[in-house]
Amino acid sequence: MTLTRAACEALDREDPLASRRALFDLPDGVIYLDGNSLGVLPRNVPARLERAVREEWGRDLIRSWNSAGWIDLPTRVGARIAPLIGAGADEVICADSTSVNIFKLAAGALAMRPGRKVILSEPGNFPTDLYVLEGLAGLAGDVELRLATPDELPSALTDDVAVMLLTHVHYKSGRLHDMAALTAKAREAGALALWDLSHSAGALPVDLNGAGADLAVGCGYKYLNGGPGAPAFAYVARRHQAAFRSPLSGWMGHARPFDFIDAYEPGQGMARALCGTPSVLGMTALEAALEAFEGVDMGQVRTKSMALGDVFLQLVDQRCAGHGFTVACPRGATLRGSQVGLAHPDGYAIMQALIARGVIGDFRAPDILRFGFTPLYVGFADVWDAVEHLAQVMASGQWREPRFQEKAAVT
Amino acid sequence: MTLTRAACEALDREDPLASRRALFDLPDGVIYLDGNSLGVLPRNVPARLERAVREEWGRDLIRSWNSAGWIDLPTRVGARIAPLIGAGADEVICADSTSVNIFKLAAGALAMRPGRKVILSEPGNFPTDLYVLEGLAGLAGDVELRLATPDELPSALTDDVAVMLLTHVHYKSGRLHDMAALTAKAREAGALALWDLSHSAGALPVDLNGAGADLAVGCGYKYLNGGPGAPAFAYVARRHQAAFRSPLSGWMGHARPFDFIDAYEPGQGMARALCGTPSVLGMTALEAALEAFEGVDMGQVRTKSMALGDVFLQLVDQRCAGHGFTVACPRGATLRGSQVGLAHPDGYAIMQALIARGVIGDFRAPDILRFGFTPLYVGFADVWDAVEHLAQVMASGQWREPRFQEKAAVT
Repeated sequence: MTLTRAACEALDREDPLASRRALFDLPDGVIYLDGNSLGVLPRNVPARLERAVREEWGRDLIRSWNSAGWIDLPTRVGARIAPLIGAGADEVICADSTSVNIFKLAAGALAMRPGRKVILSEPGNFPTDLYVLEGLAGLAGDVELRLATPDELPSALTDDVAVMLLTHVHYKSGRLHDMAALTAKAREAGALALWDLSHSAGALPVDLNGAGADLAVGCGYKYLNGGPGAPAFAYVARRHQAAFRSPLSGWMGHARPFDFIDAYEPGQGMARALCGTPSVLGMTALEAALEAFEGVDMGQVRTKSMALGDVFLQLVDQRCAGHGFTVACPRGATLRGSQVGLAHPDGYAIMQALIARGVIGDFRAPDILRFGFTPLYVGFADVWDAVEHLAQVMASGQWREPRFQEKAAVT
Repeated sequence: MTLTRAACEALDREDPLASRRALFDLPDGVIYLDGNSLGVLPRNVPARLERAVREEWGRDLIRSWNSAGWIDLPTRVGARIAPLIGAGADEVICADSTSVNIFKLAAGALAMRPGRKVILSEPGNFPTDLYVLEGLAGLAGDVELRLATPDELPSALTDDVAVMLLTHVHYKSGRLHDMAALTAKAREAGALALWDLSHSAGALPVDLNGAGADLAVGCGYKYLNGGPGAPAFAYVARRHQAAFRSPLSGWMGHARPFDFIDAYEPGQGMARALCGTPSVLGMTALEAALEAFEGVDMGQVRTKSMALGDVFLQLVDQRCAGHGFTVACPRGATLRGSQVGLAHPDGYAIMQALIARGVIGDFRAPDILRFGFTPLYVGFADVWDAVEHLAQVMASGQWREPRFQEKAAVT
């Protein structure tokens, strides 16, 4: 059956999440399919941030550590993220960047599995995951970073593996790992499972506790809409918290930071995953942004997300055939996160031409056009319009214009 | 000679930095002597931050990595800090927290001094410095964290010391280390000198290049006024940059982060000290805040800073004698940073009574009342008024009120 814009509009009318869109400050003339890279500004953030700046910082100054509860921000924001990822409120803390948190948790995992010297991940994982593991292996000495494709994972999970780090939803292909199954395999091998939820937290239901996951990290500025460079989060399953030690043992992770004693003593629970002074402005923006998830049924988010991706792919099949695109993500919606990918040898220029028309996705080297669907603010008519622009760009050959070939610093 | 308020007012009239005060949003009814913990809000920050939120994030979204230059923020902010610390613009980068940066640089130093397994610091250093070194030593294995008092430092600098980490101005006592002399001693011993400038950057002239310093870190939210939890900075002397490797090798430190390749390759120069995605909101606030230093003569800052401390101590001698205070900082202004300390067994309650009167300093366990003087916005009449309040608190015994005994989460 051929999809029409009217059919997409009908889907929008039936969308139980449609009212959430009003919580976001979507710019005019833009179809934003890049919330998987930087979430849209929630409408409540500017006023909340201005209050933090003018009143908490400007007027109350240092007293705000107590009076505005700055000291509890990492715990408070962590507790707000917890229900989105199937964790207890005391199992998640907001801190630092995803990269820094990977280092803390992977190093902590090595220490919790003494004698085991292998960190397992997969080739093509989000680069920072691999880079950080490489840095950790170089520092810890005698540690092997082993990369295995999903097919090879079962045999790569030998009895010297301390920790397996996988990204739940692949940043480029959108492929969704079976968290429960892979976590079980790691456990059978005596290894800990560390999940990077950067492309899944807020986009689909995640059930860390249900899957028996050991450790997790994730990003605050993608589907959680915390703003550019927002602080990240870290999860340590309750059963591991007493044994967990972060090598980034900064003062905010101390049991009594304001005793100012020379010897480190890890704080209770997730507090020990903190390092330096938290980014108050960044966490304040993220805390406000998370209000958009209040009362949201993540099952509805998933249903809509899968449908958005399916509609997009169906429309590409229908309207862009013969232009050299290959689908570079799983066709089956249950196997994908909340994004799709199209491969094209001229993908970079095609994406620039789309962006010039206000259809914002992104490009991932060497040849992937990536389109993310944030169910809280993207609708089905948006998807129809985006593919309409794509069809026009291809039919007109507009992407061949020289201006679309110029590489920017950030692609 | 007895100091009077009129004499202090005269000093303010002659102060060449007096006009800078108007750049800051000092709250009414407050004498703020805690800029060494959290700097005052610069007046240009709220509007700049609102623009970053509403226009760069809200309207331009992901495009701002290029169009608003987000990708260059760490380099740009680092270059603005550089002249305040005697560094070249290409020797400083803004990133992460001070704690995280200590880890990167101390680990990098160990790798640059192969075979040497000792990290030297001093007892009573700012706790996070020691905690982070402890974490690093635990992870790197076979590394000794050696603590030596300033007197013991020369003999502790044995030929197995890889790096000496000292804080230039002591957080509690305000004592100022002789950076050039101690750096020379480290160099003689074949060790690298890593300086923590958290309590000196922006408060007094720092000359990293002149002292031959190897590495440095510092804080963005104290004298640099970047806001609560502002990003920190890292310095690696140009001669060491090619050899420097950070174990926190996140994607933003990669030579070509947007090639998304599996193997880490460190970026050029200070870029390799980056880890994850930078806090755009935090760095934007810090970048705006640093404008207050444009055209400032750091020599004038130092002259005023020393005079403010001297006047404070003279007034305490003059007006608070017999109340049990001991001066807990060097008497000689050239031996101090931009703060003074008074020890008192009831220091906590006395400070709470002062804060209730709008005189904001802070308390550092077990018994230190700490008063910081930020020369850009603190004047001599402020100091007179602060000591007047202190004298009244002591004469009236007001600090004995039960409400001033209650410990807050953050002291």
